[in-house]
Amino acid sequence: MVTHSSGNHGQALAYAARAAGAPCTVVIPEGAPAIKIDQVRALGATVVIVPPAERLTEARRIAEAAGLTLIPPFDDRSIIAGQGTVGLEIVEQAPDVDVVLVPVGGGGLASGTAAAVKALAPHVAVIGVEPEYAADARDSLAAGEVVVWDLADTYRTSADGLRTNLSELTLAHLGRYLDGIVTVTEDEIRAANARLVRDARLVVEPSGAVTTAARMFRAGELPGGRTVAVVSGGNIDPALLATLATL
Amino acid sequence: MVTHSSGNHGQALAYAARAAGAPCTVVIPEGAPAIKIDQVRALGATVVIVPPAERLTEARRIAEAAGLTLIPPFDDRSIIAGQGTVGLEIVEQAPDVDVVLVPVGGGGLASGTAAAVKALAPHVAVIGVEPEYAADARDSLAAGEVVVWDLADTYRTSADGLRTNLSELTLAHLGRYLDGIVTVTEDEIRAANARLVRDARLVVEPSGAVTTAARMFRAGELPGGRTVAVVSGGNIDPALLATLATL
Repeated sequence: MVTHSSGNHGQALAYAARAAGAPCTVVIPEGAPAIKIDQVRALGATVVIVPPAERLTEARRIAEAAGLTLIPPFDDRSIIAGQGTVGLEIVEQAPDVDVVLVPVGGGGLASGTAAAVKALAPHVAVIGVEPEYAADARDSLAAGEVVVWDLADTYRTSADGLRTNLSELTLAHLGRYLDGIVTVTEDEIRAANARLVRDARLVVEPSGAVTTAARMFRAGELPGGRTVAVVSGGNIDPALLATLATL
Repeated sequence: MVTHSSGNHGQALAYAARAAGAPCTVVIPEGAPAIKIDQVRALGATVVIVPPAERLTEARRIAEAAGLTLIPPFDDRSIIAGQGTVGLEIVEQAPDVDVVLVPVGGGGLASGTAAAVKALAPHVAVIGVEPEYAADARDSLAAGEVVVWDLADTYRTSADGLRTNLSELTLAHLGRYLDGIVTVTEDEIRAANARLVRDARLVVEPSGAVTTAARMFRAGELPGGRTVAVVSGGNIDPALLATLATL
């Protein structure tokens, strides 16, 4: 198997491949935190680091050259369905939920979560959350087509897992199932990340802190009621973790 | 209100006092991590730092001089009953549990947890866990009376929340409700702490990691079956947190 991912998907695939006894290569864009690369390697996968713009073409090239199956990180119905289990768990474990906040990068997690929540509990509002430096999903939803942000722009956000643009498939899901989308600033992400580490005692990376940032700082832009924030991504740089613990 | 505590109890009392609009003083033994002192102060309580041997006498002196009520950290029926809610939650949320592992310092958390679990699910084995450098509960249970370890010995463990000796009241509870007690080494605590930070994504201090250490390294000394480890205490030194995240 081969994939391209800066984070959780790469680790998940490496884990699954090891369990299945299959070889696995993960193409990781330059600029990903060292801890993400280390964790993929620790799971036994081969890591190939490329310039961000070449991640997909390199993954395709490796798949073809080595006869490996390409497992996309988000632009795939089965991957979206798998991520939908987050929505199933929310509705099962918090049946009185009114609002679900979910991070949006490539849009796979948000697509699956929103589709599942809306299927089971259509009255629940599902809101996507993006960093202001990677607000391509907001722009895409407004335009009704995939709007691509330059890497030079998206690489300004600390939320490296959310720099990816949408695909046609994820845009179609988000257009149908999301009730809205909000953006948060880098300062808000950092403050929310510190709060999660210090008070919720959770090891969270910036990408996973955006939903809490929305709840803390953008409450006026959100529907009211009992809110579940999907906190996804714990691959934080240890030095940043130590800094946040003392903020 | 006044209490003496190196950690969670001091923070809990400071939180409760602030909510009630009551003044609060927390006597903290020298050698407690700076983060614990900071967090008590951040909750609005006055902090008094004393040599470890003087913590109880100083708390009593302040209570008398200032007309404050002394709320003991563990040697008190109401405190033990409050900590028993941990046992209620375990049995409610994990009805198929076979074994509960609980840290033992002064013995309040272990007394309450074990009493509650045994009342609701007498077939569940409840096992106390101590650092080998503060195995006073093991010795006390063996002797049938409170055995006091010297501070010079207990201050060798990184699990600063577990350095305290038992009281008559907690020994009586543990003698009646615990099915056994195991000790873990400093290396085992450190490895378990790293595992919790890195793989479970939990911000945990060494005192909270002892139960996971027992499960990881002392499985042969434990009953088999579905096991719940009580992970209590997240006031970890940020530098140690960063180190553990990379282990």
